[in-house]
Amino acid sequence: MTGNLKIKLQLYCGAEIAMGPGKADLLEAIAREGSISGAGRALGMSYRRAWLLVDTMNRCWDVPLVETAPGGNHGGGARLSDLGRSVLGRYRELQQRLEHSADCEPLKALASALREVPRASQKGE
Amino acid sequence: MTGNLKIKLQLYCGAEIAMGPGKADLLEAIAREGSISGAGRALGMSYRRAWLLVDTMNRCWDVPLVETAPGGNHGGGARLSDLGRSVLGRYRELQQRLEHSADCEPLKALASALREVPRASQKGE
Repeated sequence: MTGNLKIKLQLYCGAEIAMGPGKADLLEAIAREGSISGAGRALGMSYRRAWLLVDTMNRCWDVPLVETAPGGNHGGGARLSDLGRSVLGRYRELQQRLEHSADCEPLKALASALREVPRASQKGE
Repeated sequence: MTGNLKIKLQLYCGAEIAMGPGKADLLEAIAREGSISGAGRALGMSYRRAWLLVDTMNRCWDVPLVETAPGGNHGGGARLSDLGRSVLGRYRELQQRLEHSADCEPLKALASALREVPRASQKGE
């Protein structure tokens, strides 16, 4: 978020989103928590949802981004592969580059015409 | 879309999205079609949805982006205000700037590790 602006970067593999804001946050949480279930919990996401996002990522890149160890009900531990760390780092780099680049005249002009809060809706119309 | 990358820019006014990809396309369609209903039809969007997007835009900026003339069931004609044209132009300018800026090493590295199509899902797991 740069002031009023939110920049969302999505990398596609065919029709699937191979990397985006939610998946990047999940990779970071997996690196920190050491498991998919722990990462899901930390992000307030169901295990099923976290697992599906990991499954999508793992199918879209040359090699899986997340390596899992077998175990327990909700799987054992999980960690980022070398490619996982590299993809996450470059995605963040790209994001920072674009946020820096967005700090320009057109954005200032847009921001200066934005209200602080929206007017009330004329829903009756 | 720059190769595999999609950049979505959203401008917020409080919790509402004052401008984004769908709203910018709608503004262009209104300028071209001369009415909200015509623009909605051109984009395969219901009149209600188009009207709600216009309502949100009109509440988020210093002055409304879309001016409507009273009339018929689904309103009369509609056109962009001066601010509407200016906001649309600057939004497109910002978008082009970021797409240009995204054409860089980190993106090339990411793209080179993306598969052409995803592997099949291991949904059985």
